[in-house]
Amino acid sequence: MASGWFYLSCLLLGSLGSMCILFTIYWMQYWRGGFAWNGSIYMFNWHPVLMVAGMVVFYGGASLVYRLPQSWVGPKLPWKLLHAALHLMAFILTVVGLVAVFTFHNHGKIANLYSLHSWLGITAVFLFACQWCLGFAVFLLPWASMWLRSLLKPIHVFFGAAILSLSIASVISGINEKLFFSLKNTTRPYNSLPSEAVFANSTGMLVVAFGLLVLYILLASSWKRPEPGILTDRQLLLQPRPGSRPFPVTYMPVTGRQPYESW
Amino acid sequence: MASGWFYLSCLLLGSLGSMCILFTIYWMQYWRGGFAWNGSIYMFNWHPVLMVAGMVVFYGGASLVYRLPQSWVGPKLPWKLLHAALHLMAFILTVVGLVAVFTFHNHGKIANLYSLHSWLGITAVFLFACQWCLGFAVFLLPWASMWLRSLLKPIHVFFGAAILSLSIASVISGINEKLFFSLKNTTRPYNSLPSEAVFANSTGMLVVAFGLLVLYILLASSWKRPEPGILTDRQLLLQPRPGSRPFPVTYMPVTGRQPYESW
Repeated sequence: MASGWFYLSCLLLGSLGSMCILFTIYWMQYWRGGFAWNGSIYMFNWHPVLMVAGMVVFYGGASLVYRLPQSWVGPKLPWKLLHAALHLMAFILTVVGLVAVFTFHNHGKIANLYSLHSWLGITAVFLFACQWCLGFAVFLLPWASMWLRSLLKPIHVFFGAAILSLSIASVISGINEKLFFSLKNTTRPYNSLPSEAVFANSTGMLVVAFGLLVLYILLASSWKRPEPGILTDRQLLLQPRPGSRPFPVTYMPVTGRQPYESW
Repeated sequence: MASGWFYLSCLLLGSLGSMCILFTIYWMQYWRGGFAWNGSIYMFNWHPVLMVAGMVVFYGGASLVYRLPQSWVGPKLPWKLLHAALHLMAFILTVVGLVAVFTFHNHGKIANLYSLHSWLGITAVFLFACQWCLGFAVFLLPWASMWLRSLLKPIHVFFGAAILSLSIASVISGINEKLFFSLKNTTRPYNSLPSEAVFANSTGMLVVAFGLLVLYILLASSWKRPEPGILTDRQLLLQPRPGSRPFPVTYMPVTGRQPYESW
């Protein structure tokens, strides 16, 4: 796949990600009274904004660092640092988003962590914390062996995608739950589809579109970084004769049009 | 990865899938009054059971047909037929599940398709229908060219996983929504976590675990079927000299322990 398609996907991803955050801010500002940091419902309003920004948009963007063709050449350490730093930013936004909802609940004597939305969301955040610490210890610090890295890398990549999927499911159930709460005793309840409901449902569908695009870019094998020394999807084991020790072979991506595209 | 791990994963998958369906049935039978087909709330109770069975469990199982090592040798057509037939069964369960909820809504003059749960769910079902028809026309019927198949296969595989992710997000938001509806005017509301809420939340977490395991088996590259003629993740292009036409090379998986596992 030509790198033009990659950059077009990134442009679409940036637009979708910005829209996800801006739409959530607009929803909270225009229909839910805006923001504050005082334990009131206006403090809760930070929760959807920060979770969408942290667990979906920043997290998704940070996951794609190694898909940038610039990261394929030269030393890997600066890209590892960028990957870890962007995910740390995503994690900080997430934690502030959690502080917002817990403070609001505690202030209003509302129970914490009872809904399926909260069970799934807190699982996603917990896995994110484990993933970051494990990634830092194994892939960024220098003392993990090549064997340990090659063993843990597919698990790290899989859980990276899995946590994003859990976050999207949490965001969808969260928007759904918030609309049932907010629009239950109004002249135009949720089931009459007032403009707020249409807008917030659309925001949820945007979050889904963003998440699927991240997963597509992450999984498209021709956009993956070739890694000497660690067996990846674009490498294979060559065994010169039966019984001999196979050795891994890497190939670098062809940047132009590939022959199978014209079959 | 040894095939023993694959079969162990399948055993775990079968257990998780059965538990997802049985837990949903038990929830509807024990706490929600059981099942009927008469437009009442007992007709609605078929909806969660059939959507979990159709869009998650049968769909997930049907997706994994080509991961069975038995499907890697001999003609592919019987496995394609099995893949299509299992997905058709999953789709029929899904449609009956939709009939259950639409009939209940229409009978009780309740609006259809207003919540984010329903928007996302109907999108997943629509994509599933498109995916099945496209798969049938391109991969099962004999007239599509090799070029068209190799072009559409990664899209088919990606949307297969994407539809499962959307289904899981729909199921989570659906269980969350149902618990808010059912437990709002009771002595023990949802936020006091009565036994029904703990049970149904746990069912939701089981659905998530099942879905993640399906995605793991689907994406683990060493469990993928090697495909002569179509360039896959386990194939590469060999270019004998600069400027010459590259040709695809496939390797068959080594069934025993692979050397990089012992590095």
